[in-house]
This record gives sequence, structure tokens and C-alpha cells, in this order.
Amino acid sequence: MTDAHRLPRTVEELAAHVGGTVIGDKNRRIARCNGLSSAGSEDISFLSNHKYAIHLNTTQAGCVVVGNDISTMQRADAWEPALIQTADPYYSFQQILVLLHGFRSHAPIGISPLAVVAKTARIGKGVNIHPFAVIGENAQVGDNTNIYPHVTIMSGAQIGQDCIIYPSAVIYDQCVLGNRVILQSGAVVGCDGYGFATHKGIHNKIPQIGNVVLDDDVEVGSNTVIERAAMESTVIRKGTKLGNSVVIGHNCRIGEHNLLVSQVGIAGSASTGHHVVLAGQVGVAGHLHIGDMVRAAAQSGIAQDIEPNKDIGGTPSMDLKHARRVYLNFIQLPDIVKRLREVESALEALKDKPQP
Amino acid sequence: MTDAHRLPRTVEELAAHVGGTVIGDKNRRIARCNGLSSAGSEDISFLSNHKYAIHLNTTQAGCVVVGNDISTMQRADAWEPALIQTADPYYSFQQILVLLHGFRSHAPIGISPLAVVAKTARIGKGVNIHPFAVIGENAQVGDNTNIYPHVTIMSGAQIGQDCIIYPSAVIYDQCVLGNRVILQSGAVVGCDGYGFATHKGIHNKIPQIGNVVLDDDVEVGSNTVIERAAMESTVIRKGTKLGNSVVIGHNCRIGEHNLLVSQVGIAGSASTGHHVVLAGQVGVAGHLHIGDMVRAAAQSGIAQDIEPNKDIGGTPSMDLKHARRVYLNFIQLPDIVKRLREVESALEALKDKPQP
Amino acid sequence: MTDAHRLPRTVEELAAHVGGTVIGDKNRRIARCNGLSSAGSEDISFLSNHKYAIHLNTTQAGCVVVGNDISTMQRADAWEPALIQTADPYYSFQQILVLLHGFRSHAPIGISPLAVVAKTARIGKGVNIHPFAVIGENAQVGDNTNIYPHVTIMSGAQIGQDCIIYPSAVIYDQCVLGNRVILQSGAVVGCDGYGFATHKGIHNKIPQIGNVVLDDDVEVGSNTVIERAAMESTVIRKGTKLGNSVVIGHNCRIGEHNLLVSQVGIAGSASTGHHVVLAGQVGVAGHLHIGDMVRAAAQSGIAQDIEPNKDIGGTPSMDLKHARRVYLNFIQLPDIVKRLREVESALEALKDKPQP
Repeated sequence: MTDAHRLPRTVEELAAHVGGTVIGDKNRRIARCNGLSSAGSEDISFLSNHKYAIHLNTTQAGCVVVGNDISTMQRADAWEPALIQTADPYYSFQQILVLLHGFRSHAPIGISPLAVVAKTARIGKGVNIHPFAVIGENAQVGDNTNIYPHVTIMSGAQIGQDCIIYPSAVIYDQCVLGNRVILQSGAVVGCDGYGFATHKGIHNKIPQIGNVVLDDDVEVGSNTVIERAAMESTVIRKGTKLGNSVVIGHNCRIGEHNLLVSQVGIAGSASTGHHVVLAGQVGVAGHLHIGDMVRAAAQSGIAQDIEPNKDIGGTPSMDLKHARRVYLNFIQLPDIVKRLREVESALEALKDKPQP
Repeated sequence: MTDAHRLPRTVEELAAHVGGTVIGDKNRRIARCNGLSSAGSEDISFLSNHKYAIHLNTTQAGCVVVGNDISTMQRADAWEPALIQTADPYYSFQQILVLLHGFRSHAPIGISPLAVVAKTARIGKGVNIHPFAVIGENAQVGDNTNIYPHVTIMSGAQIGQDCIIYPSAVIYDQCVLGNRVILQSGAVVGCDGYGFATHKGIHNKIPQIGNVVLDDDVEVGSNTVIERAAMESTVIRKGTKLGNSVVIGHNCRIGEHNLLVSQVGIAGSASTGHHVVLAGQVGVAGHLHIGDMVRAAAQSGIAQDIEPNKDIGGTPSMDLKHARRVYLNFIQLPDIVKRLREVESALEALKDKPQP
Repeated sequence: MTDAHRLPRTVEELAAHVGGTVIGDKNRRIARCNGLSSAGSEDISFLSNHKYAIHLNTTQAGCVVVGNDISTMQRADAWEPALIQTADPYYSFQQILVLLHGFRSHAPIGISPLAVVAKTARIGKGVNIHPFAVIGENAQVGDNTNIYPHVTIMSGAQIGQDCIIYPSAVIYDQCVLGNRVILQSGAVVGCDGYGFATHKGIHNKIPQIGNVVLDDDVEVGSNTVIERAAMESTVIRKGTKLGNSVVIGHNCRIGEHNLLVSQVGIAGSASTGHHVVLAGQVGVAGHLHIGDMVRAAAQSGIAQDIEPNKDIGGTPSMDLKHARRVYLNFIQLPDIVKRLREVESALEALKDKPQP
């Protein structure tokens, strides 16, 4: 748990910051954010998942951000956390976290003499390049970007402004990253697409002459892999967030503001609309399109185009409500088969019954 | 999109290169390869997936490689792409890509003074070792191999000729790579196998004293992991291509010319024949054998031996045609249960009917 | 196959080391461990999986460790391997492997002048830090720990004694590792949790101000990712072993002595009891608890709390015995539907039959 970077604030100041309503002691000073069950009197916590509502009655937090539907607690002790009511307590708490703690600060080390930066590379102002980073020929790095140790940026790659490239991430040649892009450790952007032309039993490697384009505000999780296009570009549009160990095949076109959770795999040339959510371990076949706003439950197997606004689940993926019925029946299969057997027996008995 | 490395060619020259037949302007000059919808008059494209056939009518490509079954287009405009007909347009296009673009070129930097190469290591001729690569004691690197930044080759490992080891790949001690092996970024070859002897509730680590052997022409995707054998060797045979984030357990023996697509996981001591294809996210249990030429659909769960030449799918894996019927019934389960309920009711009604 | 590090031993000495009973030549000298089918007269092998029992009749091993239920072989040749009978041959063989081979030895290189170690970092005695490792400000590294090349340990991280951090592993700021922790290559400990507060269509990054705590004797496989907590800590308790490409979401609390096999994914805030086993590719939803001693079959999808001591399997996860029946019925679905159709037809025929 890192200390808060910033000054303490009163409950009232925090409520004003998020446009919330205070119930209780508005003058209490809050120094940091913390979980409901760990928080103390100088800490602020939040409740957005009703699964944890019971902790409201016991938390020692100085303040709790809650939804507008919560105004009371059932306390057994004398402590009274202040409440800040807002319409979206999760988002409000995010704003308070940023206010009190900020994001990870990046040491202003400049360009380490232990980094290798090609003479033809163009490096912006305020860039920090850590020891043992490698910036290739003709690469570009925008202002205020942080390049951590053991990052490789191959020749001709372009990195925008205010990016954070964590240790051991790799950006292959000619790939393009927008502004405020974050690559967590071990992320690989632009490795060769999995393209082979099989002829007489030999898998002949197809030169992958395209690249990867990550638009502004994309975040890529640790050890996630985005293949470069065979030709043209594999594209991840603005604001999309990829979890860890995700694999994006070559020539995919991922829309804006998607959430692709850890271990999702998307085969080549698939595309998604905007605000698509694929939960953990979802698999998507190649050459298909997932429409805007589609949400897929964890482990779904998507093998055909999905129309916009659908909630889906299961393998093969189905309408989510239908999938729930299917899986409910699925786990009852032994009973279903037993009932079928009974029906068969009853029918045999009926048939065998001598007609009068 | 990288520029073509090589000289332009006429349509006729390209057709001759792949043994194809020209329909249309054979003298047109082609400078590069490109996708059907992006290509211009100096570009060549291809059509092998009939899903994209409609683009033939609108593409502005100078030339398109097509199958022998395609000889006409339905153009609304005046442009006429030349066609090169071949029996296997995907393979023909691969040959043209290699001709016009070649593979990624590797800077002839020699052995960087910023790399660490053990004195006892044996390095071949024409080898490029980038800054911050580490080559351990008694390791060997064959002629013309490229070792990118942040690669670690631990003691006693042997790398063949003409290999490409991309940034941050790791080769553990004593592992052996053949010639023309490619490791994409973050690939790990020869980490300890997942071997523990559980005794009185403690998982005791079993020394993993074997190694990994990758035969010639193996390619390993980004962040893919191949565990070293507990004893003896984990083996990947000639020509096999692994996607990204694949995991191969210790003591596996993967046959020649397999395609193991991204996120496939194979548990310890499993083996495969030649030309096996496992699509994305397939899981394979330990200690089993998958026969020659088997092809498994994405997300299959393989928990028993598979006979050669089978196409399989599903979890648990089944004959593919059967699997399709099963999954078709599966998504109809609510309807099936409804029909069963109706049958039960009808039967009750029949039984209750007073016999005359 | 690495050579044994240690002196040869007689069969009798080995039997005494593991508390076993010798059948056959107790004076034979054994130099190394090997697989049943590769072993020679100076090698010791083992049989714990009855699938391989047939090899007992042909192995050329000098000695084989077997269970107490095995005392004879059906040999066609004149060779007689000595047998060492024990109650737990797998564990006994592990002890013999450690005795004859030991674990990987780590070169006593001290702190490489090519590593970057912050002046404020505290480094214990007997620590080996390889070239191009980076140890951040205020980080701590305990006695006898090995830090391999290209490891990044960010500011404030604490590493215990006798740890092994293999090449390119990354430990983010403020994370805490106990003693004897092993990180295989490419493991990432403490990257940002996947936390975003979505507001008006924008996914706002939530500062992840917690950390990761790995207790003593935890092993983390290659390219496995453990997210830092949003607040407080993501915790992996003592003795737990993670395979490769596992993903542990933020704020998870994984119990003692778990085995989480390769490609398992656990969503945020889930927790497990002690001695939980999750086989390969299992997925676990967020905010749930898996009880002590639960074992889940490969590819299971766990979406609700699991009571202690359950063996489970399937998606959605079920009692394992029930799951086996369900999947048996599942693959018979086409036949089940056919039977239902026949029942429907017979019923129609009965209904249509003119009553006398």
C-alpha cells in the first residue's frame, strides 16, 4: 500500500470534487483511500458491489462513497463513517483516488547513458529512458513518454506523447502508438502474424509486411501479444483496454473503448465495433465481426458474426439469456435422460397393454 | 506498411515465378503487395477466401492472384485488374511477397560491445548480437544467427545457423535449437517443468534435469513457453509453428510440421504425430498421443488419445461432424426439455384416460 | 540432459535415503536419474503412473523406484533392474533426484558491474546480480538471492532470501516476495490491476495503489502475471506453485499450497483456501471463494463459490462425478434427440389409434 501523494482533504472537499452529498461529519480529514475492511478513521472507502454491503456496518473508515440508494448503516459500535452519496460511486471513488493518490509517479531521469538510442531516432522533450532500453533507427518517441528498462523499440516505430512503456515490453519495427498509450511489462506489439502458406506439407512463412497501430489511450496488459498485419495494419482504436496474456491476431481491427479481459484470444482479421466487452478467456474465430456494444461472458466461444448490442455467452456463443437456460438444462442432462427413459418405458407398457 | 525491398516486376514475370496464367494486362508493373481493398494500380493482391470475393469487383489493384476457378469480375468501373490464376493462390501470393518484399532484414551489426558474451561461448560467422544480449558460458551460436536486445541464452545452450531470436526471448541452459529457428519476443524455451512431488501437504520441487530440443525450421510465437523435460528432452520436431502464449508442458514430444495456434496448452508428456493442427485455445491433457494429421477445432478439450487423420472438436473432444450435431442439439436444449415435458404430459393424459 | 552433480551411490544407499526396501542387487552403483525407456545400467528410474508399467519389463535401468505393490517384472531378457519399493515412489524419486543431481547451480558472480543497482537499494550477502539487471531505489534483496539478466525490480520492492529471479522477470514497485520464491522467466509481479471506472463511455483508469505479496516458497511460472491490488494487497500464500501464463487478477487471495496449472485465469478479488488444485486453463470469476482442498479439472469454468473438499469439473463447474455423467450424456445428445423424436411419434400413433 503506497502512501497518498497528495494533501489530506475534508469529506466536504471530496464530496464537492465528485458532486456528491454528505451524510454525517463533513469536516473529517481524509488522507488516503483504502478497502472497507482495512480502512481507518483517516481513510475513505467505497461500496459499489452490494455483495460487500455488510461491511458498511463494521468498517472503521472515516468516510465511504456509496450510491444514492444508501443512507443508513446498522452499526453495532459507536463509530459513524461519513457517507458521500453519488450516482456512480465507483467512478466517484476513482476520481478521489486520483485526487488523493494520483497515478504512479515516474522518476525524471532523462535519457540514461546506459540506454541505447539510435542516432537517427527522434526523442521528444521530457522523455525518460531507463537503463538498458533500446531505441532503434528512425524510431520516434513523443514528449513526456517513459521508457522503462529492457524495453526494445525497433526501427521506425513511433511512440506518441505521455506514453508509459513498462519493463521488457517490445515494440517491433514500424508500429505506431498514439498518445497516452500504456504497455504493461512483457507486452509485445507487432511481432509477426501467424501466417503460413502450407504447400506439400511445408508451412511456408508469409512475410508480415504490415504493422500495428494503437490509437490514443489504449492500455495493453502484461504479456499481451498483438500481431502485426500480414499487409496493412492491425488496429486497436482509441480508449480500448486489453488485459493480460491477451492475443490479438494479425489484421484484427478492434474498435474504440473495448474491454478485452485477460486471456482473451482473437484470431486473425476479426473486427469489433465500439464499446465491446469480452470477458476472460473468450475466444473469437477469424474473419468475423462483433457489433457495437456486444458483451460476451467469460470463456465464450464466438464463431460467427454478432449483431450489435447483444449480450452473449457460452460455446458456441448464444444470446446470454438463452445460454443461461441452455446451461441450466445442461447440468440437468442426467435427469433429462432419466425422464426420457421413463417415458420410453411407460410408452412400451402402454403399447403392450392388451386392448380391450 | 513497409516499402518493398526489391525491384518492381511485370505481371508476366510474377506469373512465371509462380507458374500461373495471366488474364488481362501482362505488362503492368507491380511494385508491392497489398490487401484487396487498399491496393492501387502498382499493387498485387490475392483472393483465397471466398468470403472476400466481392472485393474483386471493386479493388483498384493492378493485379490479383486467384484460384483457377475465377476468371471474371463484375466491375462497375472501367478498371481491370490483371488476374494471375494458380492452383493454390495463397501459396503463390506467399512466393510473390517473398519476391517483392522479402523477409525482415536484420542490421549487420556484428557483436555489439554492449552485449555480454561469455569467453567460453562459441559464436559463428556473420552473427549479429545486439546490445544487452547475454550469451552464457559454453553456449553456441551458429552462423548468421541474429540475437536481438535483451535476449538471454543461458549456459550450455546451442543455437543453430540462420536463427532469429527476437527481443527478450529466453533460452535456458542446455537447450538445443536447430537451424532457421525463430523465437518471437518473450518466448521462453526450457524453463523448469511444472513438477512437484506432494508429500504431507508440501509440494516438493523436482529438479528438472532435462532440456528442450527445437528442430530445424521451428517458429515459436511471442510469450510462448516450452518447459524443459524433467529428464531427457521436451522435443518440437522440424517445421512446427507455435503461435503466441502457447504452453508446452515438460516431456512433450511434438511432431513435425504441426500448427499449434495461439493460447494452446499441452500438458506434460503428451505427444503429437506429424501435421497435427490445434486451433486456438485448445487444451490437451498429459500423457496422451494425438495421431498424425489430426485437426482440432478451437477451444477443444482433448483428454484421450486421438487416432490419426481425425478432425475433432468440442469438449470433451469428439469427431468434428458429431461435435457439430451435438452442439446444434446443445443450443436447442430448452426446446428439447420442453418437448420432453409435453411428452410426459401427453402420456399422463393417456394413462389417466378411463379405459372403456 | 545434464550430468549428475554429485557422487554415484549404491542402490542400498539410495534405498536408505528414502526409507525403501531393495529387491535385487543392492550393491549396484547408480550415477544418475533417467526415464524408464532411456535408462542404462548406472541409471535409476521410477514408476508411479501405471500407464507406463509395461516399460518395467524392458527397461535397462540399473534400478527402478516402485510402489509397494510391485515386486516382480515379466522380463524377456536377462537384465534384472534392482527395485526400491516405497509407499510414495514419486516423492522418493524426487528425493533421489535432489541427492544425485541437485537443483540448477547458480554461478557465484556477485554483483555484476554491468547491473544497475540504486544506491538506496539494500542488497544482502551472497547475492548474485547478473548483467543488465536493474534494482530500483529503496528496493531490498535478501541473502543468497539470484537475480538473472534483464530482471527489473522496481522501487521499493522487497525480495527475500534464497530467491531465484530468472531472466526478464519483472517485479513492480512496492511488491514483497518472501524467502525461496522462484520467478521463472518473463513472470510479471505487480503490474497494474485491470481496473477502470467507465463513465460516459470512457474507461477511466483507477490508480492501483496496492501491491503483491508472495509468501515463502511460492513459485511463479514463465510469463505468468499477478496483478497488484487496487488497494491493499494481492496475496499468494506460502508454498503455492503457479504454472506458466497464469493470470491472477487484482486483490485475489490465493491460499497456501495451491497448484494453479498453466493458463489458469482468476478474476479480481477471488480467493482460494489451502491445497486447492486448478488444472490447466481453468477460469475463475471474480469475487468468489474456492474452499480448502478443492480440485478442479482442466478447462473448468468456476462462476460461484465452491465448498471445501469438492472435486469439480465442467463449465459451469459441477461436482466432478456429476460432470462426468453430464458430459457422457452431452456427447450422446444426437441420440437422445432421436429417442425423443421416436417417443413423440409413438405417442402420436397411440393418440391417433381409434379407441374401440
